[in-house]
Amino acid sequence: MRVVDLIRRKRDSGELTREEIEFLIAGYTRSEIPDYQMAAWLMAVLLKGMTRAELSALTEAMLRSGQVLDFSDLPAKKVDKHSTGGVGDKTSLVIAPVVAAGGLLVPMISGRGLGHSGGTLDKLESIPGFNVNLSLAEFRRVLATCGCALIGQTAEIAPADKKIYALRDVTGTVESPNLICASIMSKKLAEGIDALVLDVKVGRGAFMKTRDDARLLARTMVELCRAMGRDCVALLTSMDAPLGSAVGNAVEVRESIDVLCDRGPPDVRELTLRLGVEMLRAAGLGDGDAARSRLEAALADGTALRRFAELIDAQGGDAGVTDDPSRLPQPRCRRIVHADRTGVLTGMDAELVGRAAVELGAGRARKEDAVDPAAGLLLHKRIGDPVRAGEALAELHAGDESRLEAGEARFRAAVAIGETPPRPAPLVLERVA
Amino acid sequence: MRVVDLIRRKRDSGELTREEIEFLIAGYTRSEIPDYQMAAWLMAVLLKGMTRAELSALTEAMLRSGQVLDFSDLPAKKVDKHSTGGVGDKTSLVIAPVVAAGGLLVPMISGRGLGHSGGTLDKLESIPGFNVNLSLAEFRRVLATCGCALIGQTAEIAPADKKIYALRDVTGTVESPNLICASIMSKKLAEGIDALVLDVKVGRGAFMKTRDDARLLARTMVELCRAMGRDCVALLTSMDAPLGSAVGNAVEVRESIDVLCDRGPPDVRELTLRLGVEMLRAAGLGDGDAARSRLEAALADGTALRRFAELIDAQGGDAGVTDDPSRLPQPRCRRIVHADRTGVLTGMDAELVGRAAVELGAGRARKEDAVDPAAGLLLHKRIGDPVRAGEALAELHAGDESRLEAGEARFRAAVAIGETPPRPAPLVLERVA
Repeated sequence: MRVVDLIRRKRDSGELTREEIEFLIAGYTRSEIPDYQMAAWLMAVLLKGMTRAELSALTEAMLRSGQVLDFSDLPAKKVDKHSTGGVGDKTSLVIAPVVAAGGLLVPMISGRGLGHSGGTLDKLESIPGFNVNLSLAEFRRVLATCGCALIGQTAEIAPADKKIYALRDVTGTVESPNLICASIMSKKLAEGIDALVLDVKVGRGAFMKTRDDARLLARTMVELCRAMGRDCVALLTSMDAPLGSAVGNAVEVRESIDVLCDRGPPDVRELTLRLGVEMLRAAGLGDGDAARSRLEAALADGTALRRFAELIDAQGGDAGVTDDPSRLPQPRCRRIVHADRTGVLTGMDAELVGRAAVELGAGRARKEDAVDPAAGLLLHKRIGDPVRAGEALAELHAGDESRLEAGEARFRAAVAIGETPPRPAPLVLERVA
Repeated sequence: MRVVDLIRRKRDSGELTREEIEFLIAGYTRSEIPDYQMAAWLMAVLLKGMTRAELSALTEAMLRSGQVLDFSDLPAKKVDKHSTGGVGDKTSLVIAPVVAAGGLLVPMISGRGLGHSGGTLDKLESIPGFNVNLSLAEFRRVLATCGCALIGQTAEIAPADKKIYALRDVTGTVESPNLICASIMSKKLAEGIDALVLDVKVGRGAFMKTRDDARLLARTMVELCRAMGRDCVALLTSMDAPLGSAVGNAVEVRESIDVLCDRGPPDVRELTLRLGVEMLRAAGLGDGDAARSRLEAALADGTALRRFAELIDAQGGDAGVTDDPSRLPQPRCRRIVHADRTGVLTGMDAELVGRAAVELGAGRARKEDAVDPAAGLLLHKRIGDPVRAGEALAELHAGDESRLEAGEARFRAAVAIGETPPRPAPLVLERVA
């Protein structure tokens, strides 16, 4: 088998066999196949696509490049949620303890923020002491104890994905639905889960800008996951404006605690419940209203919040933040951004708000960059709100004045104030099952 | 300027500016841009194409990556011929001394055989002592003295092409008309020529299998060459069956000497004259019949043969081979292949004959392989000839019996004997100017 023949076949719209794909992925993981051949193959895959059989073989080869966790000895169903990435999306922090309180186990391997979108690991690390780099043995112990555990990708999990993702990032081969699916699924299936719920974001702040693209990605992932023997459902959800009022790291943890205290922005709460219901349903733990009531009860009676405190404690963090969020990192500089005209807030571009957060220090432009846990935005107005000139639109947090300056410029570009209130847009656009 | 942005733009069918292409090629030549990024870009170029402006910028960037020769102080016109590669095509060996005798200067930088097609350098090196690795100063001296000089690509000429070609070979990005054009033209334009005549082969033994593909390649190259300020014309010529009767290295030199002695196979002679007339015409040295008569005279009166002897001598070879071709390397083993039925020769597949020559040792499967100068085939029958069972179809030359065995098997697959003589096919299919 010659690598160049496999590249040429894909280039010419041909199909590769399962064995050929395994040969490519195993050889690349062991560095026997050089980066330049993998880069050419990835570009051919991006431009020529893959059959379902090829995608399934690719995902399985990437999955099997590392360790596949097995929690079958733990009695409850293991279900995870994955979001394709957005701005202000702190759902993972809320949903893990909520559905754990509802009777599920959530072994969640998350990522970091890149570009304008935030990352669960960066948010968790804003909690003093919180350790996202657990060994797999510790991961299992926390999961068994707290019903959920949140870590980053380890060297043992899908090393092929790690290597391929780094190459895609520098070779213009990120934006392939097939490669995105294989990357997500190889990691998620390594978690030893029974089912997966996908939150596929659509809109200005999402990776997928149109509903058609999002639906295609959702369908591909759902089919792939089922072909690998796990139940799967996807919700297409709106990401035109940021989710909730906080965008950043510590500010999002604080907002998550608000939601876990049965308060907080209604969209974050609603999305958490909708996704949570899907997770319970996938595990066979009730349907529709019954599942929703169960999760609402966990929020109302404090069970979910206690789970979050236990999780923080089990992963080395200061669980006191759940009672006293002022123990979270505080910014050195703050600035209120005032409205320059009167009207109604008609737009709050999620991508530009995300970029404002990066300017403030909350995100990273390049993988190597460090994030400032205290940096971010608190939105005082939401789409549809009336606004008076001079009224506060948002509070910006940053480490210095120059960052506030840059963040404000970006933030102002995200805001649109008009005359006519926009039609309220639905949060959940579609369910793909 | 970020390389990944340039890759993404081409991937999305966008156009790159001249400056961006120069940045890519210069950076890659200096090894500042890694192989994997260039590989992804090359695959995107292959699949998405290039505009004429991009192709011209790419060619010029590759040309300017090295030294561009200047023979403007030599009084005669400098014209070269380039063939896209075929089987039994020894035209370069004949045409260089013929048109030099006709008053042109031919500074020819040639290649080696790869796959089933032969290479001028391998053929020349079968002449004892012949040195194709001249310095550029020696190249100039031989050109000024003999009117022609034939060398291989040096480190000074288009180093970007050398590096990119090696990468294309292992990344499935060889078969792009744009990349083929840029590769050929960057080397040819570095020769300091005034005009170029292209022999674009079409058919079973050619790189271009259809006339449409060949015409597209020819037009692209002609336009590109003109855009770079040099006159250019292309002939589309048939490569369904081998050209002439000899396929190999020493055997092809011998056949070239035959043609230079005003004998030899009519197709080799005819193609030489047709291409030679185009070279004279491009140089303004007469048109049609007049140019043809001039070249025919050079063959008839021995001037062309003397030029060849001078060239061999100037490049360190044994010029005695022109009087006594038995001084060329002789094979250790020979075998006659006999016809197994009576009829008429209806097919002699050029690609399979080329592969038979490789099996015999005359070509190379991989770049690193060495060639056997004495290996090859002498065809005793040509398409349309009547054949009796048991009659000799060809004589095979090789270094040992096992190679003869493998060569015979391949050769037999190339031969078709039928009942009805095929319609004679034209040699020159089309002129693209």
